[in-house]
Amino acid sequence: MFKKILIANRGEIALRVIRTCKEMGIKTVAVYSTADAESLHVKFADEAVCIGPPASSESYLKMSNIIAAAEITNADAIHPGYGFLSENAKFSKICEEHNIKFIGASPEMIERMGDKASAKSTMKKAGVPCVPGSEGILKSFEQTEILATEMGYPVMLKATAGGGGKGMRAVWKAENLKTAWDSARQEARAAFGNDAMYLEKLIEEPRHIEIQIVGDSRGKACHLSERDCSIQRRHQKLTEETPSPFMTDELRTEMGLAAVRAAEYIKYEGAGTIEFLVDKHRNFYFMEMNTRIQVEHPITEQVIDFDLIREQIMVAAGIPISGKNYTPKLHSIECRINAEDPYNDFRPSPGKITTLHAPGGHGVRLDTHVYSGYTIPPNYDSLIAKLITTAQTREEAINKMKRALDEFVIEGIKTTIPFHRQLMDHPDYLAGNYTTKFMESFKMEAPVEE
Amino acid sequence: MFKKILIANRGEIALRVIRTCKEMGIKTVAVYSTADAESLHVKFADEAVCIGPPASSESYLKMSNIIAAAEITNADAIHPGYGFLSENAKFSKICEEHNIKFIGASPEMIERMGDKASAKSTMKKAGVPCVPGSEGILKSFEQTEILATEMGYPVMLKATAGGGGKGMRAVWKAENLKTAWDSARQEARAAFGNDAMYLEKLIEEPRHIEIQIVGDSRGKACHLSERDCSIQRRHQKLTEETPSPFMTDELRTEMGLAAVRAAEYIKYEGAGTIEFLVDKHRNFYFMEMNTRIQVEHPITEQVIDFDLIREQIMVAAGIPISGKNYTPKLHSIECRINAEDPYNDFRPSPGKITTLHAPGGHGVRLDTHVYSGYTIPPNYDSLIAKLITTAQTREEAINKMKRALDEFVIEGIKTTIPFHRQLMDHPDYLAGNYTTKFMESFKMEAPVEE
Repeated sequence: MFKKILIANRGEIALRVIRTCKEMGIKTVAVYSTADAESLHVKFADEAVCIGPPASSESYLKMSNIIAAAEITNADAIHPGYGFLSENAKFSKICEEHNIKFIGASPEMIERMGDKASAKSTMKKAGVPCVPGSEGILKSFEQTEILATEMGYPVMLKATAGGGGKGMRAVWKAENLKTAWDSARQEARAAFGNDAMYLEKLIEEPRHIEIQIVGDSRGKACHLSERDCSIQRRHQKLTEETPSPFMTDELRTEMGLAAVRAAEYIKYEGAGTIEFLVDKHRNFYFMEMNTRIQVEHPITEQVIDFDLIREQIMVAAGIPISGKNYTPKLHSIECRINAEDPYNDFRPSPGKITTLHAPGGHGVRLDTHVYSGYTIPPNYDSLIAKLITTAQTREEAINKMKRALDEFVIEGIKTTIPFHRQLMDHPDYLAGNYTTKFMESFKMEAPVEE
Repeated sequence: MFKKILIANRGEIALRVIRTCKEMGIKTVAVYSTADAESLHVKFADEAVCIGPPASSESYLKMSNIIAAAEITNADAIHPGYGFLSENAKFSKICEEHNIKFIGASPEMIERMGDKASAKSTMKKAGVPCVPGSEGILKSFEQTEILATEMGYPVMLKATAGGGGKGMRAVWKAENLKTAWDSARQEARAAFGNDAMYLEKLIEEPRHIEIQIVGDSRGKACHLSERDCSIQRRHQKLTEETPSPFMTDELRTEMGLAAVRAAEYIKYEGAGTIEFLVDKHRNFYFMEMNTRIQVEHPITEQVIDFDLIREQIMVAAGIPISGKNYTPKLHSIECRINAEDPYNDFRPSPGKITTLHAPGGHGVRLDTHVYSGYTIPPNYDSLIAKLITTAQTREEAINKMKRALDEFVIEGIKTTIPFHRQLMDHPDYLAGNYTTKFMESFKMEAPVEE
């Protein structure tokens, strides 16, 4: 087992990893930028090394500084957390070259799964369903027509130079394809000076449902069921839950087997997540694979009763996994508490926390690196806490979340607590009736005057 | 279901009950003495009524004030928590008379199980093993000799007027009985002017292991496995765990069945606990029954995945229980954090908490009514927080407790955090090798200078 792990990250995830290391009797090294000197991840590590100024490029992304910190402290492994260098093939390689175990994917694996095209073609080979689409640019309308008929309507025409919805057309019936083709190309020419198009199957009422997997050095993998992450704003997840209210036992078995097949096909080692889009007919399509721990991993831990960071460390140390697939026995929800003002278009709200009172009690977990008197620096993402509730049913987990949000006091800055509190009362959320489009129509209600 | 519950208690247990009521959509009324106006149980309830001055006899024990508070707020039930009026037959009866549901045992049940002699004879009738002993005062040495032979050595001679160990003799062999009889009587005469004696089976290396039970209005009961509460100081529990490290599957089945038999024999309704002494040969003997929720109930909740306060409320509302017996799938430990100085004979240390930082993360639960800036009044018991960790194994739960205790910051007062931290490193505790005598030989090590 490792003697000392350096955590190449900051904030709640750095603290999260430190906690498990302590519980496993492994020494820890925190690294920090000058902006993070007061963070709990620095206070709770056995050693801490300052690796640069606030700018991430000069600190948390500065590979030479991190490797130097590992060498001077004699760390024998590095845990990269999420974001920053966690899916950086070069960093994984540099760790290897310095004989420091990178607790994450191999350089080759990161490259293979990090490139969308190569990931998709790998998944196809593994027999995992991918969103059907044209291979590259459409050559003619006739080819488009044939492809659309093959994949079945509805389809989506997309300008390769596209963005902001320009040059995009959803087509629901064959007879509308020609009109859409002409107008999309015209729009793309006008907007980008480039009318090259490609075609994809349109995913109706898409849900983002991901499968947590763990693979070991023997090439054995298992899945730890799903997380529904459909509640997103500009592709940022806001709250997640497991099981998905849209899931059926049959679909879980299918998606779980596909994820395990994918992981075993690529001989994946460590914890990873396979993200799928699921349409309203419960067809599922591979979106991407994350070769690292996810922000939302705690809800999985809550329903399967074990520690995923520990699992990562064990696998990295060459210890085989049990190989058992899990299905959730409980229901768990995570709300990401961000230092943002939900009444003001989620504008970031860094600054000093003057008062913090954490909720607690039965079924409540809080992961946070902040505290009363802590100043949130403006340099990084705005996640300051993850509030997780767990209960026997979805309804109970939601009710628990409501009361935990009501108890949570953070003063001095704005947070997304009021957003989550309103979400937990939204009829569509309560009904489990939401897709990735949910936030497009969500409006905050005015705050209650006291 | 009840519309509004008044919680006739204070501190962490009042807050504990309020939380579950909120999650169930039931309105809450807090009552408080003038010393408790700033407690979280007052802040988090829907309504709060001041019921008197700090002295418990004038507030939390003042039945008329509590009933008046329930009547003016229109509460249809009262939850008594633990301590105070929770096992008061008169209060249970007064609630009944005022048409307010008492969420606890009936007056008859409290009387029956509250009186030790009547509880013991009831349990005997139910076929639950009790500590063998003489029925009343020993009439002669000859009778004593016969009884001792019947119950088997070792036995304990006890002066009926006894106290502080005076007039008590453990007797391990028949040939020593006469000497012990003479000297114990002589000592009792000298100390108390009364040499009346009784005889009990001596429990070798006693462990305090209790079984949580729940019974419903149909007369059906189930057990939710055990809690080991042997770590006690002057009969005050300090830390508890489930499963007991001394437990075997066979013993759990036997004790569980005995507890269920007892509960069904008396048609017990609600949550209750049957406390047993278990000797080194794994014989178990009924000690007493608590007809209320226990301080240490959270560790049971952690390993069985459900909410015991909710269960109490459901049963009180007449909803039948599932009737399933549970065995722990996980390991859970509770440390009672008291405002006491463990370096100074556990002397109470009330006062203002200047800083509070709560531990968190995977497998950590905290139940507390205190916060940064809160002043602990000197009038009540010194329990300020319950720190609970849960993991797959005992070793992991202990390691989690160590790191959670290390993270827990309470400044301004002394607390028992350092005691628990040292306990978690004690070789006998680590080995699960402890009895109710453990604290008699436990010594605090000097604090580490920083």
